[in-house]
Amino acid sequence: MDYEKDRIIDEIIDLIIDLLKEKKYIQARSELLNLNPVDIAEILEEVINALGVETAVILFRTLPKDMSVEVFSFLKSEQQVSIINVITDKEIHYIIGELAFDDMIDVLEELPANIVDKILANSTKEKRKQINTFLNYPENSAGSLMTPDYISLRKDMTVGEALAYIKKEGMDSETVYTCYVKDVGRKLYGIVSLRTMVISDDDVPIEDILERDFVSVNVLDDQEYVSNIFKRYGFLAIPVVDNENRLVGIITVDDILDIIDEETTEDFQKMAGLQATTEEYLYTSVWRHVKNRFPWLLFLMVSLMVTGLIITQFEELLSKVISLVSYLPLLMGTGGNSGSQSATLIVRGLALGDIDSKDSWKVLWKEVRVSFIIGVLLSILNFVKIMILDGEGIFIAATVCLSMLIVIVVAKTIGGMLPMIAKRLNIDPALMASPMIASLIDMITVITYFLLAMLILGI
Amino acid sequence: MDYEKDRIIDEIIDLIIDLLKEKKYIQARSELLNLNPVDIAEILEEVINALGVETAVILFRTLPKDMSVEVFSFLKSEQQVSIINVITDKEIHYIIGELAFDDMIDVLEELPANIVDKILANSTKEKRKQINTFLNYPENSAGSLMTPDYISLRKDMTVGEALAYIKKEGMDSETVYTCYVKDVGRKLYGIVSLRTMVISDDDVPIEDILERDFVSVNVLDDQEYVSNIFKRYGFLAIPVVDNENRLVGIITVDDILDIIDEETTEDFQKMAGLQATTEEYLYTSVWRHVKNRFPWLLFLMVSLMVTGLIITQFEELLSKVISLVSYLPLLMGTGGNSGSQSATLIVRGLALGDIDSKDSWKVLWKEVRVSFIIGVLLSILNFVKIMILDGEGIFIAATVCLSMLIVIVVAKTIGGMLPMIAKRLNIDPALMASPMIASLIDMITVITYFLLAMLILGI
Repeated sequence: MDYEKDRIIDEIIDLIIDLLKEKKYIQARSELLNLNPVDIAEILEEVINALGVETAVILFRTLPKDMSVEVFSFLKSEQQVSIINVITDKEIHYIIGELAFDDMIDVLEELPANIVDKILANSTKEKRKQINTFLNYPENSAGSLMTPDYISLRKDMTVGEALAYIKKEGMDSETVYTCYVKDVGRKLYGIVSLRTMVISDDDVPIEDILERDFVSVNVLDDQEYVSNIFKRYGFLAIPVVDNENRLVGIITVDDILDIIDEETTEDFQKMAGLQATTEEYLYTSVWRHVKNRFPWLLFLMVSLMVTGLIITQFEELLSKVISLVSYLPLLMGTGGNSGSQSATLIVRGLALGDIDSKDSWKVLWKEVRVSFIIGVLLSILNFVKIMILDGEGIFIAATVCLSMLIVIVVAKTIGGMLPMIAKRLNIDPALMASPMIASLIDMITVITYFLLAMLILGI
Repeated sequence: MDYEKDRIIDEIIDLIIDLLKEKKYIQARSELLNLNPVDIAEILEEVINALGVETAVILFRTLPKDMSVEVFSFLKSEQQVSIINVITDKEIHYIIGELAFDDMIDVLEELPANIVDKILANSTKEKRKQINTFLNYPENSAGSLMTPDYISLRKDMTVGEALAYIKKEGMDSETVYTCYVKDVGRKLYGIVSLRTMVISDDDVPIEDILERDFVSVNVLDDQEYVSNIFKRYGFLAIPVVDNENRLVGIITVDDILDIIDEETTEDFQKMAGLQATTEEYLYTSVWRHVKNRFPWLLFLMVSLMVTGLIITQFEELLSKVISLVSYLPLLMGTGGNSGSQSATLIVRGLALGDIDSKDSWKVLWKEVRVSFIIGVLLSILNFVKIMILDGEGIFIAATVCLSMLIVIVVAKTIGGMLPMIAKRLNIDPALMASPMIASLIDMITVITYFLLAMLILGI
């Protein structure tokens, strides 16, 4: 999909790199000014890659100050750190001070401790305490996603007073569309949307229009749970409370879009036998790629060796009926494919909340029936093919086809049930999918096939 | 993750089903009234499953009218249709008339033609034309996602006038947070956020605060492209224009959350050799499951048969050195796993926009280096294992290990490049991943292994 927008930005990138090479900084700057900060950030990243961070910083410094902060917030964290390493302390403090709170926390998490300490030393005591609290929320928790920048209203305000307050306070906040009303002890009492206020008369008390049946998440809830809540209810923002139900921050939907991608990528990686990582492919070094892929390949290799060992036990059988070997890939492959179909459906269903851990019996019953039908169909096709095309005897055909039926039923049952069991045991179901199941099914296939062969062929 | 909220809803479901069995409808109703419409919809679905649609409709009718419409909009389409089939024409018209426009279009798309015709016959001519236009946008296009319910302002309005207009018009619209200003000929001129208006003084002209550098999508753009725009810029809504740049509707972020899941599920399914479907696992019939899984298994089986055919050509070799067979699963499995690691990384990178079709050489060069390192490491480990543990000769060990190195390099290169090529040819890269690559690699593995064996063992 070559969209115009992408092409335009690619062209601007080339133009700007040319201008910078000729040291035409002001011309380069004027190309940027009308763009969205997200696009400027992308261009700046390309400049860093092409010409180095020093040149990029010259361009960065020509941007209007408020724009430069916004652009900074959209850079990847590696680039943020590389810019921080080049600019002056004064510039660092300006940027850190102007960033939205959640963006600032993201930056601080990536910076070396000595720079963070320097920044904290220059903050007020209260701010320092708040930053430290946020830095300590566990990774992937609601706390690590939230921002403390929200609009807090009082029950006894009127709509007019509330709107005037928002006008005064809400300048910097992207998070103004849902406002929060606290009770005694900072407990969350109700929420009210900006839309409701705008369409209400000025003298209506907030108390009359606020919603008391709101949904909130706990500060320690997992980000996957939080994103499921967003998907379920279609919220723009959600309040985050601590164990005493005190409001500590809010999470907005734009951050959730990233989280959904992150969680899905993690599932994809686990299902392909990869170390889960949020690093981008092209920005990951060769050694890092090796590190992310090697352990699983090694682990799976060991289980494949076991399959090999099992085959060794049947070498006598094989040397007598060598044609059995040629059906081995068919059986192992079909078993693996059948299992991974089922596993993928279940892992995805669990992730989307369509399937619940209490649905185990339903899944089992469905997989048994589906696999039996598919197994019978494929076995019949194979039987005909082996008898007619391959010209093998009925005993070989029967062995292969009976094995196939058993393998498909077992593979689909295991493929469906392992993720369900993992979910119950609080293990990530994605880990149980594809390559691990395939290895397990390989072993079962080999044993079933060769034992049946001995039985049917009478060896 | 057994969250309290889920447990509470499960308990309410059990309670309500019990109450309905005893025909205590009013008590059942009062259990529902304080819940979020999303939750009520879930409960209603469970009631349909447990007690049938007739009983569910009795409960549905006890709900306040406006709430019933909202609950209806959150039901799955099968349930919507089953309710439509039971309620009166008058009720159908009320619900259809009160639904948000995009929800109404979704319902109409699922209804049988005769009911749709009846509904259209009762609409005004203008409305009928608009509905027909929307029903004709291609599936998965921006047009099929958008709603025509947006706030349209004039440049010459002041903020005060605009807010008064929103207060009058904006009652029903969830889409009030970004407003749109049109030029002559309905061309989109600029956008202005409700937040900007609320924090501006009443006498400021809209012209002064509107943004002219907005991002829009075309009505025929693919939904995946639209969702990538949302992720990139973090918008709450985006304007949709036709080929003449006229504003025809808007898409809001809550609909995009569903689209992201839908697109990822499709990728998961394709990568596991499944017919892509948006149906939920548990609600899909056994035969439908068979239909979704059978064609790919059959197709893959054919390629596995080819691998079997290749093996047949080497039966003489195998009958001489039967121990070669026991390393076959190791080589085929490791090849498949290596290839699917690479394919998954590339498919995901392409989907997220981290990798572009112009990055082919970078991907190739990276995969070659990564695979060579991994291949050498795993081969050395295998060499030691085969010599010492298996007690095989150096020729067998060399054959297996050299094959392994070649297979891993080829598998990772193919796994990385096939999705890139697919992208260039406008084929979905996900289709190129996992089982198809594994089958291809199986064939390459068998040929490489056995040819090398003949060469090294001198047979």
